[in-house]
Amino acid sequence: MATERPVPDKLRVFSLNCWGIRFFSQHCAQRYEMIGDLLDRELHDIALLQEVWCERDFLFLKRKLSSSYPYAHYFKSGVIGSGLAVFSRHRIQDALLYQYSLNGHPYMLRHGDWFGGKAVGLVVVDVFGLKAQVYVTHLHAEYSRAQDEYLPHRIVQSWELLQFVRHTSSGADVVILGGDLNMHPQDLGNRLIRAHTGLRDCYTETDTFDGCEDGHTLIAVNHFTKKQDLIPFEKGIRIDYILMKGSKKVSMKCESLSTTKGSVAGEPFPYSDHEALTAELTLLQSEDSRQHGQRNISDSHTAVSEQMDIVAEARAVVKEGLCHTETLQARALHLMGGALLLLLLPLLLILLPCLCSCSHFSFITTGLLAAAGAVVLLSGLLFYLLFTTHIKVLKETEDQMKLTSDDLQSKLAGSRASDFSSSDGSI
Amino acid sequence: MATERPVPDKLRVFSLNCWGIRFFSQHCAQRYEMIGDLLDRELHDIALLQEVWCERDFLFLKRKLSSSYPYAHYFKSGVIGSGLAVFSRHRIQDALLYQYSLNGHPYMLRHGDWFGGKAVGLVVVDVFGLKAQVYVTHLHAEYSRAQDEYLPHRIVQSWELLQFVRHTSSGADVVILGGDLNMHPQDLGNRLIRAHTGLRDCYTETDTFDGCEDGHTLIAVNHFTKKQDLIPFEKGIRIDYILMKGSKKVSMKCESLSTTKGSVAGEPFPYSDHEALTAELTLLQSEDSRQHGQRNISDSHTAVSEQMDIVAEARAVVKEGLCHTETLQARALHLMGGALLLLLLPLLLILLPCLCSCSHFSFITTGLLAAAGAVVLLSGLLFYLLFTTHIKVLKETEDQMKLTSDDLQSKLAGSRASDFSSSDGSI
Repeated sequence: MATERPVPDKLRVFSLNCWGIRFFSQHCAQRYEMIGDLLDRELHDIALLQEVWCERDFLFLKRKLSSSYPYAHYFKSGVIGSGLAVFSRHRIQDALLYQYSLNGHPYMLRHGDWFGGKAVGLVVVDVFGLKAQVYVTHLHAEYSRAQDEYLPHRIVQSWELLQFVRHTSSGADVVILGGDLNMHPQDLGNRLIRAHTGLRDCYTETDTFDGCEDGHTLIAVNHFTKKQDLIPFEKGIRIDYILMKGSKKVSMKCESLSTTKGSVAGEPFPYSDHEALTAELTLLQSEDSRQHGQRNISDSHTAVSEQMDIVAEARAVVKEGLCHTETLQARALHLMGGALLLLLLPLLLILLPCLCSCSHFSFITTGLLAAAGAVVLLSGLLFYLLFTTHIKVLKETEDQMKLTSDDLQSKLAGSRASDFSSSDGSI
Repeated sequence: MATERPVPDKLRVFSLNCWGIRFFSQHCAQRYEMIGDLLDRELHDIALLQEVWCERDFLFLKRKLSSSYPYAHYFKSGVIGSGLAVFSRHRIQDALLYQYSLNGHPYMLRHGDWFGGKAVGLVVVDVFGLKAQVYVTHLHAEYSRAQDEYLPHRIVQSWELLQFVRHTSSGADVVILGGDLNMHPQDLGNRLIRAHTGLRDCYTETDTFDGCEDGHTLIAVNHFTKKQDLIPFEKGIRIDYILMKGSKKVSMKCESLSTTKGSVAGEPFPYSDHEALTAELTLLQSEDSRQHGQRNISDSHTAVSEQMDIVAEARAVVKEGLCHTETLQARALHLMGGALLLLLLPLLLILLPCLCSCSHFSFITTGLLAAAGAVVLLSGLLFYLLFTTHIKVLKETEDQMKLTSDDLQSKLAGSRASDFSSSDGSI
């Protein structure tokens, strides 16, 4: 059954992590000027931005791009904001935000992800009468690849992202996801997202790639840090992505993917510490709507088996995260116990006459002990509450993964039984 | 185009707020026994429970109902949990949780909603080959109808609920939402949900109602409080609901709705402080898939106008909530200023020799002042962070409402223009 609606030829999608931390990111204001000029010049259909941490910077871009991109949405969450923004030449009809349940620790001030309220934002865009569901996201950063304490957080975020995409995209003609996943292409979370949503990576889907071959991000990062050896170059170290998926009506093809390449002609520095991606997508009428989603039986077996394997791997990480968080929760209880002892010390100072001489030292000691005790007790309580909520999230994710795993198992058993009966019948 | 798939006749859905606060709710353990017996006896297709605050109680029910309801899911969020549980006789294939971004204040300990991590849980249930999306939810309580400080929170929750349902239900054959909305039928949030999701209230949809006519909840509440005049009886004071919606394939009809009626035969107390609801739904093959969602033009105008009016009303509440929260944020800043002064006082005690006599009083004063200063400073900071995140959520909700409003406006303008041109052409 061929679609009757005319399908536009091309859709150009842009994604950039803008590194917009005021008073910290280098040349922030100038770079936003450059990013605005780039967007204005290139006239993409949809531009997905991350790390636009300051609303003023979003408003600056919105004003600058008011004629070239008449539609825009800035997603607000957390203390600082989600940093996510969308600019579109096509009407944005609707928006929805899903804030990830697990996103680092508030006490890790030097990492700061927690304050960003990391999330996935969805905008529904009317592209020449087609319903495009466009997702923009930014996952928790990876600060150490060797000892990645945030791995369970990023796996939970990947799971919530894929669940959100799966459940919200069924009525869409076109699905696009862009953003900074903070994961290498073959990392577990990335495989999880691709295997369970059917989204395809524009980088691997296209024959025409023009950009930094190895590591889209690193050339720009190295410009600012001046440390070529900060992160060793590896093939496939990309962490920024544009993913895509068609529907029964419309199939999608990535014609080309390009990235910026570090320095910008006529400018003293790059657009950001990440490179920008631009994907040129072709939308094609699906010749037969029944073809979509149909695979031959052996393909389907392989896909389901792969999904099961990846979910099992992810469950193991979540379980490990759960054990670790339970240890942290127990430590928070010990901290509260310690704080109570600390609060008893000033009382001891009063009760022991030998220590109770009138000196500034005693005053200061009493005050400091009491203050420290109160702060540690309150902190211990907050840590306890924090880790308790983290445990709830990890358990919920593990339960959901188990459900999916069981469902896949029954699908596999069902299809094997039907294979068996059909092969049985053919004898 | 008639559907080919056979549709089951009936679907019996149960919903109950279990009032399961350990060490607070009266006769908790005995009531869970009674609830388990009721579910086991009645054999509903799907049972949606709220306020199952303790996981042990869920596990007790799961064990007890393992043969009658082989599928169950318990949604975990917040510090205590979401309290949401689903028991099903049909396979639960998948689950997803959306925790509301705004849910009271952590410092309102006597209300405690914040600790519950209120949310909407979605389970995808395979009902005889049909895809049923079943939602269970519990919104923030209303503690005072005259001065409802949580109204903006409940409006934000209603908005997030309707957005979540709208965006996740497009691929479903059958949509069911059950739970405690903590809103009367004609309250703003309730109208918002119904108008923007197309969900229909089983109570108003059926001709066969058997239960407490006025106020499903109150008869049971009054049993436990022994205060008949606690909340005056009003027609339509219901706060527990089962809502439903069909699809292109399947249309739904509510054959009957019944509630428990306070006391239980042979038992000294009711099942809960809420009455339980049971809806008997008939699923019908849609004779023509094109009929679904089609209205005549004047109907469509009215519906869109109504949606616009309700969104405008909701936006006004959110804006008011935003102003109030900005005031609270400013107060948090003042509190931090006051705390800094409090921390300076012990220093003054040391510097002023007349006060610096060696007495237990001085030791205690110094200690207490320092401790109080430290606690107030930390609390001020936490309040500031809290209200900042609330402001972000309120602004995001208002932006989303504006987008929807603009989209409805353009739809209305478009349909008016097509009316005009068609009437013009007919002359």
